Order: sequence, then structure tokens, then C-alpha cells
Amino acid sequence: MCLGSGRRWRLWRRCAEGLPRISSGCTGERKQTIGGASSGAATTQTRLAVAFGRRVLWDLGLGLVWRAREANRVVKVAEKMTGVVIDGKETAAGIRKEVKRQVQALEEKYGAEAGTPGLATVLVGSRTDSATYVRMKHKACAEVGIKSIQRQLPEDITQEALLEVVRALNQDPLVHGILVQLPLPSHINEEAILAEVALEKDVDGFHPLNIGKLAMKGRQPLFVPCTPLGIMELLRRHNISLAGKHAVVLGRSNIVGMPVAMLLVKANATVTVCHSQTTDLPGIVKQADVLVAAVGRAEMVKADWIKPGAVVIDVGINSKDDPSSKKGYRLVGDVAYDECASVASMITPVPGGTGPMTIAMLLQNCATAASRTLGAST
Amino acid sequence: MCLGSGRRWRLWRRCAEGLPRISSGCTGERKQTIGGASSGAATTQTRLAVAFGRRVLWDLGLGLVWRAREANRVVKVAEKMTGVVIDGKETAAGIRKEVKRQVQALEEKYGAEAGTPGLATVLVGSRTDSATYVRMKHKACAEVGIKSIQRQLPEDITQEALLEVVRALNQDPLVHGILVQLPLPSHINEEAILAEVALEKDVDGFHPLNIGKLAMKGRQPLFVPCTPLGIMELLRRHNISLAGKHAVVLGRSNIVGMPVAMLLVKANATVTVCHSQTTDLPGIVKQADVLVAAVGRAEMVKADWIKPGAVVIDVGINSKDDPSSKKGYRLVGDVAYDECASVASMITPVPGGTGPMTIAMLLQNCATAASRTLGAST
Repeated sequence: MCLGSGRRWRLWRRCAEGLPRISSGCTGERKQTIGGASSGAATTQTRLAVAFGRRVLWDLGLGLVWRAREANRVVKVAEKMTGVVIDGKETAAGIRKEVKRQVQALEEKYGAEAGTPGLATVLVGSRTDSATYVRMKHKACAEVGIKSIQRQLPEDITQEALLEVVRALNQDPLVHGILVQLPLPSHINEEAILAEVALEKDVDGFHPLNIGKLAMKGRQPLFVPCTPLGIMELLRRHNISLAGKHAVVLGRSNIVGMPVAMLLVKANATVTVCHSQTTDLPGIVKQADVLVAAVGRAEMVKADWIKPGAVVIDVGINSKDDPSSKKGYRLVGDVAYDECASVASMITPVPGGTGPMTIAMLLQNCATAASRTLGAST
Repeated sequence: MCLGSGRRWRLWRRCAEGLPRISSGCTGERKQTIGGASSGAATTQTRLAVAFGRRVLWDLGLGLVWRAREANRVVKVAEKMTGVVIDGKETAAGIRKEVKRQVQALEEKYGAEAGTPGLATVLVGSRTDSATYVRMKHKACAEVGIKSIQRQLPEDITQEALLEVVRALNQDPLVHGILVQLPLPSHINEEAILAEVALEKDVDGFHPLNIGKLAMKGRQPLFVPCTPLGIMELLRRHNISLAGKHAVVLGRSNIVGMPVAMLLVKANATVTVCHSQTTDLPGIVKQADVLVAAVGRAEMVKADWIKPGAVVIDVGINSKDDPSSKKGYRLVGDVAYDECASVASMITPVPGGTGPMTIAMLLQNCATAASRTLGAST
């Protein structure tokens, strides 16, 4: 403990208090500090001595070289980590159970006919992907006891006829939620159709009034779009704190990027929105404590873009050629999963991450809509 | 030009092509590169020789030390710069002239009575600051020929009575814009009052439907809030390109931070939203090619936060004690102007920056509202 001079003691103090540290910014359970060891394990004396040694190196002008080496060490240590998989399938199953109980409670209170939440889907044309999505939603509805009402309409339906279908559903007391499957054929004005959906039945949360309230401080939308809501629910249910964290959102779409950025700001994260015109994407992603990737580019985000210990939420669903698969392809996200999983502290897989959560949130929004309407009518 | 060995030549090539450079990221006219000199001034040979010298240092493991020193040099050179002042007063005066011509054209077309744009202001209570703002708006209206209709209401007005005032203004064909001066007394539900303003008269752009459309890709709000609109107009009229630039917004208020962030994203900037819970604010601000400060904290942003060559837009209006002033105080922005002006490439002063632009945009929105209404009614 003998230091020999006041200057050294001051140096020690400075080292202990203020020596630059590279923190992993990990929001999960594990934390990497310089040296890869928990500071709690060392005695105060040892820490001071180590810090003093580092300070001397620093003062000799080699600090930056040392810092770069330590940063590399952190990355190497982190590369040996395996990120916790955020299981969207399991979380969504739990939420579906909750919704099922909610539906049963509504039926008990308001009767099996009037009390059953109803979701109307509007499908225009014969796009295979849209038909698949609608079928999946009906299946999920059936599982929790929500009644599906399907409107399958021809590709060449007129704008006015489609508006009439939406208006009729707005009036139907057994329909509590309306979902217009996008995209609509090019001759239809999508904005006008979505704006026609009654606010209290807008379970997709795409009405501009709901988006406006989502954006505004102190306002609450009636519904939040399902994918962003699912992401926030995943983060919440996995105890991932957001206040003061740096969240980076890749993509600025109306259905994912833009609303999730707003939700993250409301959750007190510092939020950066990146998109196709962003320069130095890897450099910005590297700052993310929480990364939300929603750009639709297969495995674009690489391991060396990820800050060690970051939480990675992958919203992309892209098909990738895979001769070893029966179908000749497989689904991958926007994040190169295998390599990124070893740097992130937590990561969502594709499939089985945000996808199941989106449908679970739609069911939850439907049950909420029914609960509000029925509650208001009694 | 004799090199003596193939290895040296390869090194030279690498130096000339790929030696790390620190660019100032300047979006204005001037650019600082490492060394502070224009590369165009040196001959190719000199550049290669200098680059080779740097490469040798780099290879000796001193590259990082050298880089840090060069970065300091860039900052020092930049500190001697004087940022171009973005004169909001002058730009606003130009816009007011344009609005005046627009008003005259409307009067010529629709007659002096029906064709004069009318702005109704609703002022509740006796807050001195609110009264001052309303007075300034009336004065600006008079300058460009917009008719002001003032509703001065008592502090204890009921919610319903205030709603009635707004409804009556909605119905008045001579009122084209309605401005409810905020804040309202605490017993009034601000959200309900603002939502009552007819969309086509929402010249403040605060209606959630307008905010929703502002947020959404492919949608256009009828009106954009005046301060964010003024900021975008200042940037546009000063030829500041935004695509691919990193814009950092300090503050997430409904009237400035949030909408300006959305506008910047729509203008293809990469946008980071910071606020009271942001950690490492200086580090994030340092990345900004364009900084918008709207937090209401006097001279919070310091020179060493600013990236050399950045464009700085200061929205703050704060009073600071100043015994040398008659009033005993003076107005300052959120940015420490004197010191930051020497690092930024362009900067708005306070007062005389975004303030005059806000009122000019209100007048422009009024003229637009009148133009739309009168055009639709003929």
C-alpha cells in the first residue's frame, strides 16, 4: 500500500474513480467489463493496484493502444458467449392462454353469443402469402375462442364497394375488430380504406389517429400495431430495461420501424432510426444496447456489427435458398443468427421470435376491443 | 520517385488508397481533413510521400496515438473557424413577403372580405408569456394582411364553454385557421380541446390525425407544426442536404422534438432522439451532422460536444441572468452559442434563429388554409 508520493496517491484515486472503461452495455444478466472479470471479486486494494498499473501505461502514451487491445479482448470473450434465446413461440403461447381466459370471462359475463369477441378479416384478391397470413390468424382465433368473420373479395372490387364492406363491418355489433389484409390491389386507395375502419375496431392500430396518439407524449392510442406491440411485450416479459439504453431501429416502415421507434422513445430509450440511406450502418448498430432489425434483407446484420451483450430483436422474415431443405429454401431473419447469437446477450430466432408474438397481440387487441365495446354497452 | 522495393510501393499504394481519415462530416461549404489542408493543393508525389510517412508510423504501432493527435489538430483548426450564422430573422422576413403576396392574390381573386385569410387565437387566462406570444402573432398577421380574430377568455372558463368557442370558430367561414394558445389552465382537458379544432383549420398542426399522417410514410398531414416546419424550411433554404446525414434531436416534445424527428426521417436523415434519460449525451451529440436542440436548458450544449463542421439548430429560448442588461437578464438558447459557433459550420442564433421562423410558418399555414378552403368553395 506504500505509495511514496502524493502524486501517486492522486493518480490512484483518479484511476479508481475515472479510468475509462469499456462496458458491454449488456442489458441481460451478464456483464463484461475490461478484463472480463467481475469487479466484485477483487479486493479494493487489488483493484486500486491494477488501476494504477493501467494509469501508468496510459500516462506513457500507450493508453489508446492498450484500450484497443482490451476492446478486442472483450469482443473475444463475448464471442465465446451464447446469447439467451428469446423464445417468441413460448411467450406467445402464454399470451394466447391469457387471451383465452379473457374470452371465457367475457362469454360468462355477456353470454356465448354477444360476449364472444369477433374478428373480421378482409382479404382482397388471391395473393398466396396474404391468404396464408389470414388463415393463420383464423386458426389462432379459433384456438382462443375468438370468432372469425371472413370477407373474401375479388381482385377487381371497386374502391366504393370495398368501403361499403368496411362500413358494414363497422356497423356489425358482433364484429369487435376489423383487419384489412395488406397489400391491397394497386387500384385501391389503401389510405382511404384504412381510415374508414372504425377507430374502436382498428385492432391493427394502423389508423392515423391511433398512430398520432402513439407518437404524442401524454396520449394513448386505442390500439398499437401488433408487431411493435409484440416486440415491446417480449422485452417487458424478459425484464429488459429500456430507460437510458440506446435502441437502434433498422427500418422506418409504417407497420414496424416507425411505431416501434416511438414506443421505444416512450419507454425512455435513446432511439436511432436507420434506413436504406443510412451511412455507416455497422458503426451505428454497434452502439445499440437493443437492436430491432426490420428491413427485410436476409442476414444483413453481421456479428461484428453487434455490441457485445446487446439484445437483438429480429423482425425480418426472408427466404434463403437451401438445397438441403425439402422446400429448397428456409426462412431467415435480417440478422445472421448463428454468428450474432454468440455476441448478443439475448436474441430472437427466425422463425419463432417476433412472428408468433404479432398474432398473439392481434388476439389480445381483439379481446380488448370486445371488452371495451361490451363494457361500454352495458 | 525511386522506391527501392516492391513492398514499399505496395505500402505507398495502400497509404494513398486506404489510410484512415477523419472527416469532419461538414455539410456546409468548408471541409476539414486530417492535417487541415486541402488535398488538392499538394502534388501527387508529396501526398504519397506524406502518406508513406504516416503508414510507417502506423505500422510501428503508434497509429492510434497519431490518430488521436490528428483528431485534436482537426478540433483545434475547427475552433478557429467561425460558423456561418443562419439568420432566421432574414429568412422569416422573406417568407412573410411571400405570404403577403399570397394574401393579396387571394383578395384579388375572392374579394377583400371573403378572400382575406383569418386567424382566430384563443387565449385562456392571463399568463403574461401567452399574452405576449398571441400579441406577436397578431402583429405578424397584420404585417402580411391576415385578419386576426381574438378570443380572450377567463381563467375559470369551463371545458364545455371552451369547446363551444372552438366549435363556433370551426363554423365561422371567415376563420381559416384556429390557434389555441397553450398551456391551458389545469382544469381544462387540453387533448379534448385540440381534438375539437377542425382539421382543415388546424394551422398549429397539433391534431393527432395530422401528427399521425406526419409520422406515416406515404401520408401527408394537412398542416405541420410550425416550429419543426420552420426548422426544415431553414435547412432547405440554406441548401443543407439531409439524405444520409446523421441528425440528432435533443428533446421529444409534441411541439418540436417528436415532429422534427419525423420530418428528418422523412428527409432521409438517420435520426437519433435524445432526452432527459439519455446517457452519454455529449458522445451522441458528437456524431451529429445536424443537431436540433430543443430541451429548454440554457447553454447546455458545449463546444466540445459538437462535431467540427456540424449544422446546429437551436430551438431553446431561456433567460439567463445578465447584470449588464437593462432587464437584468438576456435570452440564450440550449446551445452555448459563442463557443459552438466556432466549431459548427452553420448555426442559428438565439434570438433571431428558429423563433421568427415559427411565426412565419404559422402565417404560411394560415394562407394555405384559406387558399384550400376558398379554392374548394368555388
